[in-house]
Amino acid sequence: MQRRTALSLLAAHVASSPLFAADDDLYGPINIHEFEDVAKRKLHKLAYDFIAGGVEDERTLKANRAAYGHWELVPRVMVDVTNIDTSTELFGVKMDSPILIAPTGGKELVMPGADEVVAKAALKSKTVLCSATGARKLLDDGEPLNWWINGIGQPTREQAANFAKRTEDAGGKAIVLTVDNAYQSNRDRNNRNRFDYGMMGRGVPKPGEEVKPVNPATPAMWKPHTPNLTWDYIDWVHGASKLPIILKGILAPEDAELAVKRGASGIVVSNHGGRQLDGVIGTLDALPSVVEAVGGKIPVLMDGGIRRGSDILKALSLGAKAVLVGRPPLWGLASFGQPGVERVLWMLAAELKLSMGLAGQTRLSTLTKRLVRKSA
Amino acid sequence: MQRRTALSLLAAHVASSPLFAADDDLYGPINIHEFEDVAKRKLHKLAYDFIAGGVEDERTLKANRAAYGHWELVPRVMVDVTNIDTSTELFGVKMDSPILIAPTGGKELVMPGADEVVAKAALKSKTVLCSATGARKLLDDGEPLNWWINGIGQPTREQAANFAKRTEDAGGKAIVLTVDNAYQSNRDRNNRNRFDYGMMGRGVPKPGEEVKPVNPATPAMWKPHTPNLTWDYIDWVHGASKLPIILKGILAPEDAELAVKRGASGIVVSNHGGRQLDGVIGTLDALPSVVEAVGGKIPVLMDGGIRRGSDILKALSLGAKAVLVGRPPLWGLASFGQPGVERVLWMLAAELKLSMGLAGQTRLSTLTKRLVRKSA
Amino acid sequence: MQRRTALSLLAAHVASSPLFAADDDLYGPINIHEFEDVAKRKLHKLAYDFIAGGVEDERTLKANRAAYGHWELVPRVMVDVTNIDTSTELFGVKMDSPILIAPTGGKELVMPGADEVVAKAALKSKTVLCSATGARKLLDDGEPLNWWINGIGQPTREQAANFAKRTEDAGGKAIVLTVDNAYQSNRDRNNRNRFDYGMMGRGVPKPGEEVKPVNPATPAMWKPHTPNLTWDYIDWVHGASKLPIILKGILAPEDAELAVKRGASGIVVSNHGGRQLDGVIGTLDALPSVVEAVGGKIPVLMDGGIRRGSDILKALSLGAKAVLVGRPPLWGLASFGQPGVERVLWMLAAELKLSMGLAGQTRLSTLTKRLVRKSA
Amino acid sequence: MQRRTALSLLAAHVASSPLFAADDDLYGPINIHEFEDVAKRKLHKLAYDFIAGGVEDERTLKANRAAYGHWELVPRVMVDVTNIDTSTELFGVKMDSPILIAPTGGKELVMPGADEVVAKAALKSKTVLCSATGARKLLDDGEPLNWWINGIGQPTREQAANFAKRTEDAGGKAIVLTVDNAYQSNRDRNNRNRFDYGMMGRGVPKPGEEVKPVNPATPAMWKPHTPNLTWDYIDWVHGASKLPIILKGILAPEDAELAVKRGASGIVVSNHGGRQLDGVIGTLDALPSVVEAVGGKIPVLMDGGIRRGSDILKALSLGAKAVLVGRPPLWGLASFGQPGVERVLWMLAAELKLSMGLAGQTRLSTLTKRLVRKSA
Repeated sequence: MQRRTALSLLAAHVASSPLFAADDDLYGPINIHEFEDVAKRKLHKLAYDFIAGGVEDERTLKANRAAYGHWELVPRVMVDVTNIDTSTELFGVKMDSPILIAPTGGKELVMPGADEVVAKAALKSKTVLCSATGARKLLDDGEPLNWWINGIGQPTREQAANFAKRTEDAGGKAIVLTVDNAYQSNRDRNNRNRFDYGMMGRGVPKPGEEVKPVNPATPAMWKPHTPNLTWDYIDWVHGASKLPIILKGILAPEDAELAVKRGASGIVVSNHGGRQLDGVIGTLDALPSVVEAVGGKIPVLMDGGIRRGSDILKALSLGAKAVLVGRPPLWGLASFGQPGVERVLWMLAAELKLSMGLAGQTRLSTLTKRLVRKSA
Repeated sequence: MQRRTALSLLAAHVASSPLFAADDDLYGPINIHEFEDVAKRKLHKLAYDFIAGGVEDERTLKANRAAYGHWELVPRVMVDVTNIDTSTELFGVKMDSPILIAPTGGKELVMPGADEVVAKAALKSKTVLCSATGARKLLDDGEPLNWWINGIGQPTREQAANFAKRTEDAGGKAIVLTVDNAYQSNRDRNNRNRFDYGMMGRGVPKPGEEVKPVNPATPAMWKPHTPNLTWDYIDWVHGASKLPIILKGILAPEDAELAVKRGASGIVVSNHGGRQLDGVIGTLDALPSVVEAVGGKIPVLMDGGIRRGSDILKALSLGAKAVLVGRPPLWGLASFGQPGVERVLWMLAAELKLSMGLAGQTRLSTLTKRLVRKSA
Repeated sequence: MQRRTALSLLAAHVASSPLFAADDDLYGPINIHEFEDVAKRKLHKLAYDFIAGGVEDERTLKANRAAYGHWELVPRVMVDVTNIDTSTELFGVKMDSPILIAPTGGKELVMPGADEVVAKAALKSKTVLCSATGARKLLDDGEPLNWWINGIGQPTREQAANFAKRTEDAGGKAIVLTVDNAYQSNRDRNNRNRFDYGMMGRGVPKPGEEVKPVNPATPAMWKPHTPNLTWDYIDWVHGASKLPIILKGILAPEDAELAVKRGASGIVVSNHGGRQLDGVIGTLDALPSVVEAVGGKIPVLMDGGIRRGSDILKALSLGAKAVLVGRPPLWGLASFGQPGVERVLWMLAAELKLSMGLAGQTRLSTLTKRLVRKSA
Repeated sequence: MQRRTALSLLAAHVASSPLFAADDDLYGPINIHEFEDVAKRKLHKLAYDFIAGGVEDERTLKANRAAYGHWELVPRVMVDVTNIDTSTELFGVKMDSPILIAPTGGKELVMPGADEVVAKAALKSKTVLCSATGARKLLDDGEPLNWWINGIGQPTREQAANFAKRTEDAGGKAIVLTVDNAYQSNRDRNNRNRFDYGMMGRGVPKPGEEVKPVNPATPAMWKPHTPNLTWDYIDWVHGASKLPIILKGILAPEDAELAVKRGASGIVVSNHGGRQLDGVIGTLDALPSVVEAVGGKIPVLMDGGIRRGSDILKALSLGAKAVLVGRPPLWGLASFGQPGVERVLWMLAAELKLSMGLAGQTRLSTLTKRLVRKSA
């Protein structure tokens, strides 16, 4: 009885939150934050934590969000903004909006066949999808899926060449190579939940379902992924295919210069959504010096912490040609399946367009860093 | 029963707040914050949220308030401050205090005929009113209302000329043109409340009254207002009338320079009270570079987040010739009607005068940026 | 019953606080913060708020405390600190410790005859007392009270001369002139409590005692104190007496230069404990530029927010010759009467001495700004 | 009954915390923070507070942790990080990891014989132990314990020479001299708990056990330890022994220069874990200017606030050759005895290695300050 009092007090607190949208209504959530709220209620804690979590103390995760607060927009006025065009072209692929779906793991914790559902949403939304897994079926069916890219580097010359050829044959338009994944990282939320990567293959746990815990004495930390991935990889790909190769996970200006020098076609400023190394610079804070180092020679994209159209506008103003979003489509997916993913993508694109209009901007190509200022 | 325990705990928390002033007593609220508290209790949540809210995550809204913390006063002493004169003159209009009533929407959510009530309070307080709607009746009655100005630009040459002429004929002393209103913005609080702009015309909802919600699939976002408002507007007005034209919503120094060049008579540094684009610079933080860009050629006014006389003193020291207040008069209106508006205006004017005296300042014309310093 | 549950929860929270020292034990409070806690429990809310409170939103009050966080000590080591000497001499008065008792109002809200009790504690602690009221009786009795000074300037040449002469005759060693008191300020806590200055003369209200409220329509704000106090005052004093005159309430470097030029003997960097103008720079943040402006020509003292010996060490390192403390002695007084005042003074002096030893410093005269660094 | 409601609410809050690991399971805590949580539950409050606490308002304690947030990592990629070598050599002692056990007091409050237990864990973990007390027995038994060092300087030439000789004879490899311990400091938590240093000799209090309080009128503050420790001490040691001497407690660049000049073999940038002087600069913030002052002439180590491998990586990148950890081994000790100490040391070493791999770093010798950037 007494215990219930305490709980009902907490419940009252939650119920008074304005974020308590109806979970059954696709139009309930009015922003990405609320999509996350719905997803959190519908997912097993283990799955939610896997997706939402960062590494260790989640300093990097917070740094990504905090970085948008370090820059403020200084909008222009009295410009005719009747027509706003957010379209762009990257590596021969035209897109209506500079918002791509980032490669993310753990989709199978959300629902079976999740990768394909996301691919369908990408197709419907005419959004570039940076993931091979879900794309294959649609490509086999001849669907005009815009792009496809694989996340993880294969560590030998033969594997890299093979992979590049298969990607090209399957209709992929570019290779996104994730370069910050040398080792399995130290994710506190997963460790705390005794999360076992083997769980991923065993289907989707229901909320509250008990799951077999991993052996706590041997955490996933330290498992090598691609520790020997080096700059030669670019040569190996180029020797076997003409596909452009985009390096995802660059933060240091020195690496940006090397990427140009070694023939990369583009880079993504990224810290893996705060999921690899903790205490790392937020991506929006890292962006300007990378853009400066690249000097316009190849396109610079970015990801990390994007939740609003105005976040994207800041990134584009600081020199990003496009952005990738990782968690938002997953919150849409977990909330309402394919329509949820589409709604999330629509929301970000609409917010970006509106933000541009309210900032006196009509095209991506004329955005400049004069549009933002460091916060006081 | 248990639920009630939780609620009574929250109630106890609220009741212990020093802000719980008597709602029936005009002299209950001792500052603008407390007027807002009273207004919040008297208004329908939907109306309160409409007025209090900003756009999206309300970063801009918070930036406006936070900016006053970025600057600190360095008062002077041993000056004879027996007589403090806060009077000024702008565009031929003399005023006792450099505090104007900003144009604001949503007054009809507070009470029927609200615009006229505010106009009467402005007349009584000898305060300049920047709103046409409420002023008309008083002007028709021949009352010596100080000024009147309309907020929204009409997008064609004929409409602009017509509007300017009618304004001049009706006794308006200047035109304030709101230039940051290209599109209906994305206001989370309204969206969350399923607020429908049509509600405005259907009278004032009582607190707790159920209101018909808007269709959530089609948010107000994206409705164009004045997307094609350009610098030509100034020429159109000047071709039809001699009224000075003041542009409200300038933040970028480049736009300030253009305003001077294109013949604007004054500008208001404003981000629409944090209600248009989120993630925008706070107005006090934007003010110095706008003042520098204008170089004294035309008067620079500002609005945004003003709640105290010392806020105003900071703005004036940084180069503003006068300030506009938007929400404070509405909190006064919602609390106690016309006397509430008058009390709020008196309070701000009195606090400004006192702040000047305590800072060793006796006239507006000698205020300088030496009086403030960036916070450590 | 249910209400009591809520209250007992709050009570449990309070009881678990480590600050809940025994109110009857002089040695209960282990630092100045805990003396304030005891005082708060023993005082009428109206009296506590009068003493503890600042003006309006208490930005200045918080700025004073926050300023100590803007500077960090960089201690020296391997210096022989066996003997630490905190003594100094100012205007011919030798003191063991550079900590003076600031003039403060409202002592009569703590207890009857409070001024004399504080004066006795000052005598016992060999501390300089900057207050005339309590000192008179002791001086009449021929007690060797170290110093005495009056706070408020009298606005005519005759009054100033008279006052200076009487001070000299009564054995005062210097005149501290409070120069930031032009008008009665706008103190929200007092206004909220309907505090009436007339209450001061009507004796000490008991905790919980009902007090007759002031008329809310006519707040104390705006009552002029010394609006016409100007630099001539220094000449008037010097014409009638040889007493040194110290100006308390200087923050602007320009005023510091004027003080030197007009013949002041010393200045106190002060914002009246955050009780006059809100939004003002913290005193420790103002100190360095005042010290630089004065250039060593006269001693610079400071007050504001001091609660620890290390706070004092920072102030002295940044160039203050001595500090004044206002609220701490009053917390001691309200807690335990005269012994409380003495304990508070002992505590601050002991903490300063210990801080010096741990920072490798043995004398005040060799403290330099190399000992502090701006916080990262 | 009502009181229990309140408590069960708090209990519910605690139980919902993800930090509530099983106290009986060595593999329960997944990071150093959680080891502290377990230790806190197993220790008498007096013992926990003694170890966890800092001095006065614990500004220095917080500054140490906050400093890691002032610097952000900018990792490198596409480097072969298959093999990561964290080994280093200092003063002829080779170590697998640059993490040493700092000297700490109060171990006997955790368990009887604690010093020897920690020494055994150091031996098992091949970690350098900076403590004489626990080491003696193992050294007597001929165990190959890596290093030993004594914390406190003896104030005469004879004592210093004697001590150095005895250290050398007993197999110590270096002398760490704590130079910031001139006086017993003012520790609020201890004072609040009426902690008496005599308690240390009377064995380990059980959680909840009542302990005889110290006389509150005479706090431990002011007891001199080594007030007359000066630079001559280095000569005295060098006259009697060839052991290198490392000064622990340097923060000022001036002292770092003096240390080099006077013949110190190394220095430890330290503020005694926030336990001596309050308001002091965080050690990571102090490190760069000390490293610059030393100019590579002797090794610079550091301690203070380290809880993660990425903290260590930041310190090493800013120029530290190695770090010392004080509280973490004690949390391991209090949680699970010797295996807890070993687990904590393993965890920090593993996190460091992983952080290096994810930052594209394979050796300590090539770490540079280019790897970190000041936070925005």
